[in-house]
Amino acid sequence: MKVITELISFTEGIKLKSGKSLSSFDLMIETYGQLNEKKSNAVLLCHAFSGNHHAAGKDEKLGIGWWDQIVGSGKAIDTDKYYVVCCNNIGGCAGSSGPLSINPETQKPYGKDFPEVSVNDWVNSQIMLMDYLKIPYWHFVAGGSLGGMQALEWSIKHPNKIKKAGIFAAAVKSSTQNIAMNEVARESIRKDKNFFEGDYYDHNVIPKDGLKTARMLGHITYLSEENMDIRFGRKFQDEESKVGQNIDFEIENYLQYKGEKFTETFDANSYILMTKAMDKYDASEKSNLDQALKEVEAKLLIIGFSSDWLYPPERGKEIQVAAMNNNIQSSYIVLDGDHGHDSFLFSSKQYSNLIKKFISS
Amino acid sequence: MKVITELISFTEGIKLKSGKSLSSFDLMIETYGQLNEKKSNAVLLCHAFSGNHHAAGKDEKLGIGWWDQIVGSGKAIDTDKYYVVCCNNIGGCAGSSGPLSINPETQKPYGKDFPEVSVNDWVNSQIMLMDYLKIPYWHFVAGGSLGGMQALEWSIKHPNKIKKAGIFAAAVKSSTQNIAMNEVARESIRKDKNFFEGDYYDHNVIPKDGLKTARMLGHITYLSEENMDIRFGRKFQDEESKVGQNIDFEIENYLQYKGEKFTETFDANSYILMTKAMDKYDASEKSNLDQALKEVEAKLLIIGFSSDWLYPPERGKEIQVAAMNNNIQSSYIVLDGDHGHDSFLFSSKQYSNLIKKFISS
Repeated sequence: MKVITELISFTEGIKLKSGKSLSSFDLMIETYGQLNEKKSNAVLLCHAFSGNHHAAGKDEKLGIGWWDQIVGSGKAIDTDKYYVVCCNNIGGCAGSSGPLSINPETQKPYGKDFPEVSVNDWVNSQIMLMDYLKIPYWHFVAGGSLGGMQALEWSIKHPNKIKKAGIFAAAVKSSTQNIAMNEVARESIRKDKNFFEGDYYDHNVIPKDGLKTARMLGHITYLSEENMDIRFGRKFQDEESKVGQNIDFEIENYLQYKGEKFTETFDANSYILMTKAMDKYDASEKSNLDQALKEVEAKLLIIGFSSDWLYPPERGKEIQVAAMNNNIQSSYIVLDGDHGHDSFLFSSKQYSNLIKKFISS
Repeated sequence: MKVITELISFTEGIKLKSGKSLSSFDLMIETYGQLNEKKSNAVLLCHAFSGNHHAAGKDEKLGIGWWDQIVGSGKAIDTDKYYVVCCNNIGGCAGSSGPLSINPETQKPYGKDFPEVSVNDWVNSQIMLMDYLKIPYWHFVAGGSLGGMQALEWSIKHPNKIKKAGIFAAAVKSSTQNIAMNEVARESIRKDKNFFEGDYYDHNVIPKDGLKTARMLGHITYLSEENMDIRFGRKFQDEESKVGQNIDFEIENYLQYKGEKFTETFDANSYILMTKAMDKYDASEKSNLDQALKEVEAKLLIIGFSSDWLYPPERGKEIQVAAMNNNIQSSYIVLDGDHGHDSFLFSSKQYSNLIKKFISS
């Protein structure tokens, strides 16, 4: 698999949905495989909230790609056949412009001054990326969760630039409970003694405790309740392997460990920006969903997972109903998936086959 | 309604399930109505995790009692007929011995040194209270959530001291997800800069931020997801009534407000102790549930609420099945209840009637 990692600077800048602008910005991207002569085999992968441009293969620093089970030579999204592109979204913390980047106006990291970003902005930046890569249209745009929202937005806003969309474990918009959970996570970050209103870079610290608590909560929402019961149940953690002194149960140990690990790679300001983008996205905001999907020309593959309680399968069904009301070629299916919301990340024979068939159909 | 508030000191002390002891302890209680001559009309109310002894009526400091819709003159638990007793559990923060109390050994507040407490310990302290009040048996022991666990424990451990038990919105034990949520709440408290390992009283501060975040999360689990959608949906908060600068949605404003209010009345160490007691309770821990219920003689009224996702109705059904397997006189019913887990706190015609009929049957 031919992997290219590239940092691309867009000096023309971008106007954001919030009304603010970035006078210039960078996108960190990874591409796999090769664009064919007809330029008809380009695939865009959109990452979920804590993901990045590293979707496939193994990277020294970033480890295994987030969709490595689905993307690669001979896999569901076959990099021998398709030219696959993935970028770290703006507002993120893996190389693209975000709160960690240097603000050209102050020569310091943006911190809290990095403007609010949205799904809409990401799609617009991906349009610019497309032009840069000389890709006339995407054969397929796909993603799970917040990535699925981008795939949906692509099909709504740019019907002439996308042939097929894969919308997995996603929703038209977040529910009140989704927003509520994200607000608790943000609150925990904001109140960390090392947060300094978002300008912690200046103080050479990170709001680690708050970010850890936020991730612990997030993690609960990504896992299946049943799977958690089977895997951890009410088992007590053995003394030797406890990661903290207040731990009784295995599930506590697991969350503490996962939360801690997360703080080593993710930025707290990005956590706030990305969850806000997730909360505020609403494909149907200007009308209703039937209206919103009126211009869609892409074929849609909508997959929900039965154990997902963050964006349960019914949320995918809403998209399917609106697609059918608009005579859009669309398939909706609910798969088992043991991993709750995270099921979209893991390959299963059925899931991989469905994606494979859909892309090549 | 005759209301008596009393602080009772038990100088004989109590041995706790953890192996530790309190050499003496206090219980803050409230009683409503009068014990009849036959001493056959005593009712014990057990409070949920953040509740206290003030179950009914209006108190200058504590406001309206937590079960005022159910308990009072002419209400479902009729204080004209029954002598109703409610105590603040040990480990709490409303007058009974807890982390805020003075440790006789150090003459300072216990803080982190207050021993771990359990449902079992509470029932044992309630036995001592019963003796003090010269009550030979409870006609009825009832509670919701963690209070329901106490009612269940009473019926299991003291079959000769209880005639009827009301177990509402409760479970035999917490699920892995329940524990996980509580651990996130505790983590948020422990990492507050003002927590000082639980000895914040010495520093004249409280870990307010952590406690607030914990309560915000708790609050999400108490509310019905559907009701949240109906009540708040994705509505934006108007500028004038925002309680914080980072707020976009009404649900954020609501949680921020509720979380903040909670910190004015509840103690962070108690939060940790009470949630640990909830996590660790397991009526079936020494055998299985059928075995555990073998000695039960009380009649049981088990009520679940359809919108409760913390202890959903299926958890009550487990108790009912074990009751039926043991030929215990038991009724199990699922009520609608708009308020999610909190539904047990609110009167409805059906809910109140069921309780009223059950007590007097």
